[in-house]
Amino acid sequence: MPELLSRLSLNQITLNQLSLIECVDACLRHNVGWIAPWRNKVAEIGLSESARVIRESGLKVSSLCRGGYFCAPGAIDDNLRAIDEAATLGTDTLVLVCGPAPDRDIDAARGRVADGIAAIVDHAHTTGIKLAIEPLHPMFAADRSVICLIDEALAIAKEFHSADVGLAIDVFHVWWDAFVYEKLEKSTGRIMAFHVSDWAVPLPGIFAGRSMMGTGVIEFRRLRLAAEAAGYTGPIEVEIMNEALWARPADDAMEEIKRTFAASL
Amino acid sequence: MPELLSRLSLNQITLNQLSLIECVDACLRHNVGWIAPWRNKVAEIGLSESARVIRESGLKVSSLCRGGYFCAPGAIDDNLRAIDEAATLGTDTLVLVCGPAPDRDIDAARGRVADGIAAIVDHAHTTGIKLAIEPLHPMFAADRSVICLIDEALAIAKEFHSADVGLAIDVFHVWWDAFVYEKLEKSTGRIMAFHVSDWAVPLPGIFAGRSMMGTGVIEFRRLRLAAEAAGYTGPIEVEIMNEALWARPADDAMEEIKRTFAASL
Repeated sequence: MPELLSRLSLNQITLNQLSLIECVDACLRHNVGWIAPWRNKVAEIGLSESARVIRESGLKVSSLCRGGYFCAPGAIDDNLRAIDEAATLGTDTLVLVCGPAPDRDIDAARGRVADGIAAIVDHAHTTGIKLAIEPLHPMFAADRSVICLIDEALAIAKEFHSADVGLAIDVFHVWWDAFVYEKLEKSTGRIMAFHVSDWAVPLPGIFAGRSMMGTGVIEFRRLRLAAEAAGYTGPIEVEIMNEALWARPADDAMEEIKRTFAASL
Repeated sequence: MPELLSRLSLNQITLNQLSLIECVDACLRHNVGWIAPWRNKVAEIGLSESARVIRESGLKVSSLCRGGYFCAPGAIDDNLRAIDEAATLGTDTLVLVCGPAPDRDIDAARGRVADGIAAIVDHAHTTGIKLAIEPLHPMFAADRSVICLIDEALAIAKEFHSADVGLAIDVFHVWWDAFVYEKLEKSTGRIMAFHVSDWAVPLPGIFAGRSMMGTGVIEFRRLRLAAEAAGYTGPIEVEIMNEALWARPADDAMEEIKRTFAASL
């Protein structure tokens, strides 16, 4: 298998029409070596059954999606559980989608993100889990993540040890930034995850607004090389929320994911 | 009239259901002293008739929307025409929506924005027109503007004299930026326009995704005060693209615009 394809990880929402067990089977059928489960899919069959299925499959787990949402009620307890689930599932990385503000005070919400990470980082460290802050596209600033910029996420990460807190870079969220390459360089040693999907015009939606690699405007190779120059050589998750993709037969989708990944990355 | 309401300018697309003449009449009926026409509406009745109607109304013209789109065929000629139209309509400000890249090379397109402004700035200067680069929300990076960040726009503006090239700050485009207040401070002396609308959740659309002030998450007063601290005390355009608003009777909409503007700004 070419080196790049060996880094492909199937983020489970890309084939949201499948259960976790079906997703694992699809990876095995298509010789994809990595998977990134979502907690809602894990919950469907339970944590220990999910862990058993993945362990017996031989798949590696690139990350668990997700912790975060630090302004939500019970956030700290939920994040501590997410850390435990990540460890049980056999990954070393928990992606943090930091959540919205409960009111118009976005700066206060950003402060609660930093405070929330401070409250869970010791447990993450002792559990062997890295916390990867994912800056989301600014169109999600009001409802999914008050953290939108790489440098903003990096400033929070740097309050902690580089082995414990870093960044999840998703090209869909950051490709448009005029300073993305210098920001990635400044993130050297902090990148813990790398996600891909494309930005097509017109955008097919907002939450489900992502497209197959090569159908949009994103410069994947340049961004991938920049992440590598910044020290990230781990798995690359394909994370595509797209209604049309979810309506397709999974095997067709997997073939196209592999082909466009190899051609675009 | 309270001081703040005397700065309210009706950006024409907010009442896109109206012609330019109807828009002028609506401003007069509702005691709004400023208007910001769009070139497509000006073209409907012709430039000289538009200029006559506005001049005779006594309304002041906050800006003309828009120049820009520097990668489009004929862009320089079109921008030179836009400068002339702005002067004829009696405004001193042309808003630049810089346009998308023709391919995946967004950095090259950004270079063409700077080159395009360099090609028109002398004509703008001698015509008495200021060029206001509008950084657009990153969700428009692929189809409307390769310029998304205040600091990115400012770096281009600073290649030119502060009397000639500056920024149009629209809160809808920049509210989410974690560094927006320091970026506005660094823009002191360069802010040439200030636009408002709100970011509601869920967003009612992408192009037509804007909402009435007070119905979303934007901290208007804090942003307005930051723009004032950076030296901008000119008209404040209400620019709301929203299908539901366009379906309403204009007089109802104008009443709500004035009321929510006064309450939120």
